[in-house]
Amino acid sequence: MLIVQKYGGTSVGSIERMRNVAARCLATARQGHQVAVVVSAMSGETNRLLKLVSEIHDDTNDREVDVIVSTGEQVSVGLVALAIRAAGGKARSFLGHQCKIVTDSAFSRARIVSIEGQPIKDALAAGEIAVIAGFQGVDEKGSITTLGRGGSDTTGVAMAAALGAEFCEICTDVPGVYTADPKMEPAARKIDVIGYEDMLELAAAGTKVLQLRSVEYARRHGVRLHVRSSFSDEPGTWVQEMEETQMEQAMISGVAIETDEAKVTLDDVPDRPGVAATVFRAVADGGINVDMIVQNVSHDAKTDLSFTVPTADLPRLKGVVERLVEEIGALRFESDDGIAKISLVGAGMKSHPGVAADMFGALADEGINIDMISTSSIRISCVIREADAERAVRAVHARFGLGDEPAAAG
Amino acid sequence: MLIVQKYGGTSVGSIERMRNVAARCLATARQGHQVAVVVSAMSGETNRLLKLVSEIHDDTNDREVDVIVSTGEQVSVGLVALAIRAAGGKARSFLGHQCKIVTDSAFSRARIVSIEGQPIKDALAAGEIAVIAGFQGVDEKGSITTLGRGGSDTTGVAMAAALGAEFCEICTDVPGVYTADPKMEPAARKIDVIGYEDMLELAAAGTKVLQLRSVEYARRHGVRLHVRSSFSDEPGTWVQEMEETQMEQAMISGVAIETDEAKVTLDDVPDRPGVAATVFRAVADGGINVDMIVQNVSHDAKTDLSFTVPTADLPRLKGVVERLVEEIGALRFESDDGIAKISLVGAGMKSHPGVAADMFGALADEGINIDMISTSSIRISCVIREADAERAVRAVHARFGLGDEPAAAG
Repeated sequence: MLIVQKYGGTSVGSIERMRNVAARCLATARQGHQVAVVVSAMSGETNRLLKLVSEIHDDTNDREVDVIVSTGEQVSVGLVALAIRAAGGKARSFLGHQCKIVTDSAFSRARIVSIEGQPIKDALAAGEIAVIAGFQGVDEKGSITTLGRGGSDTTGVAMAAALGAEFCEICTDVPGVYTADPKMEPAARKIDVIGYEDMLELAAAGTKVLQLRSVEYARRHGVRLHVRSSFSDEPGTWVQEMEETQMEQAMISGVAIETDEAKVTLDDVPDRPGVAATVFRAVADGGINVDMIVQNVSHDAKTDLSFTVPTADLPRLKGVVERLVEEIGALRFESDDGIAKISLVGAGMKSHPGVAADMFGALADEGINIDMISTSSIRISCVIREADAERAVRAVHARFGLGDEPAAAG
Repeated sequence: MLIVQKYGGTSVGSIERMRNVAARCLATARQGHQVAVVVSAMSGETNRLLKLVSEIHDDTNDREVDVIVSTGEQVSVGLVALAIRAAGGKARSFLGHQCKIVTDSAFSRARIVSIEGQPIKDALAAGEIAVIAGFQGVDEKGSITTLGRGGSDTTGVAMAAALGAEFCEICTDVPGVYTADPKMEPAARKIDVIGYEDMLELAAAGTKVLQLRSVEYARRHGVRLHVRSSFSDEPGTWVQEMEETQMEQAMISGVAIETDEAKVTLDDVPDRPGVAATVFRAVADGGINVDMIVQNVSHDAKTDLSFTVPTADLPRLKGVVERLVEEIGALRFESDDGIAKISLVGAGMKSHPGVAADMFGALADEGINIDMISTSSIRISCVIREADAERAVRAVHARFGLGDEPAAAG
């Protein structure tokens, strides 16, 4: 089999840990598999490089910044390749421009256009372990690009798709995907198998184990993922296509929490066509991603419009919204960064009515007030006070019995 | 004019110093010149990376080591390009594989085969300052290579040749090339102009300002060099083709000292044809560079054979020589790393008899014993005790009046 393994920054955070990665790659190779391994920069390295940049320059979306930060992964691939050879294996490193991972020219957040793959296949055919730099690519002019934070996951998945790998192991510092953050809910259980859709919703809702973008890529290309610990041989969580019967058994996959968002409310917005479009066009033009949007019913042709944005974007948003209040004739705006968003995710909820009511009931029983609600067909999200986050996670986790039984037929 | 400037590790050793480099490049550009700037890794960075390597691997002559250490220059070019832009200029960085600097595949000591140059010319034509990574190239298979220590000087010179630049400025942490090391001889004078030949001999004899290899490249391609300080606007030392008349005026260019060599002597070597060949073939096969070789006259068909090697190679040499002593039937070998080599260099000495005698006299007057002598047509070198090095430099420097008058018609 051809297997792609991806190791994150913590997993290659020291020479000792690189030796561990080398041993794992070799163990897989010695089982008779072809191994392509994608590695991140050593933990802390990307931040060290960005700090150098910030002393000169305040825009990280720049051709030269990608030249600089891509060196983190470059050092890692060289060292991991050496570690594999020091342990008796054969290995060769590949940078984005050698693989060849062609991207668009959107520096610092480039998207993969194509992967040549042949150089990797040649190395694998020659019995070498291919050690591939994550996070980086090359545009059509030959400039180095980077894929943005978490881009190494995407490199791993894209490489697995391009090589036709059996699956892609995402080797990280946790044992898998859990029904809730174990730091908040000690009863949280590792999920054995989860469908792409649920994993996407969990990632979008704040579960940090996998990058949303890499899961999207995996679903689109049908790449099976195995999320597991770099420091153990225990199986982790498989992310894959689920059959309808499995999904029904697994009504709920898990609970996610997001505390890095802020709520913004425009009060007394005139309730006329085109107002919402004006607001969200202006916000989007400011480069700010809006998450939840809630508009209450109208009184006296006025309504309140609330939405959530990443807390980090709040200062930038304020300038945009102050102009908007005047333009659309609203009363004022308020912002609140003391919120949390709790989400319940499960493709099975499509066929189970009453899930939302159960969730709201669980929160109510704890005396937790719900500030905003939004739903998709497989997710229910509630904005609550940040101080209530941990109690909310436990209450919802317990109400749906997520710690007790397999969430999926594994 | 098209000018290439090269900045060493100390000159880009901090963000502040990179700003200084940016300001110098821009000042040159604003005089109406096209500027291509070659930069080294920030001082200390290459050693930091090699230390990471050494924790895994004891061979630095390896494809993966070049992948790792070349990141030092990669970070530098990105930061310098950003600094130029932050100061209001236009700049674009170029890595070895983008330039395109094609080398052979001798990792860690690759030689330049060709430079495409067109990407640089395009950037210059677009009004950009081209910021080029020193020390690195790419082989024909697309693997990253490095040129060895001091390789950034070579990149600068080679780039100047490829672009047809007017000259190459080597911007460093000293004001130019001196008639002697100013740390040993306070009366040493900065040389205004020096010929390639003399500069080659000085570099080979231990003057550290310029890499021997880059001077060779400059001579072969007729590239004028201007060695000067990164931290001042004072003119430095021009290295260029000298006319015969200039050389006669400038009888002596300077005094060089080398303290990193050791002397090895084989005693009572049978004086028969082929013995020297056997000895130096074995030493060369051990990868050891021999500098001076002296063979004394023969007594009773036996002779003493002495030579000098870099001190760092002495442990490796001992194994080779021990076997040799037996093979050729010599009495024994001795080694001595307490020596220094003082060299007097000047193309003008060809037409001035008595230079050697004056040098030996200067040393004798100081009571300094000469252990070995070797000469070329433009250099006289004497091996002396290391403890006598500084006194020897001052005595020879004074005897030839090097501190008093221009060493060359500048």
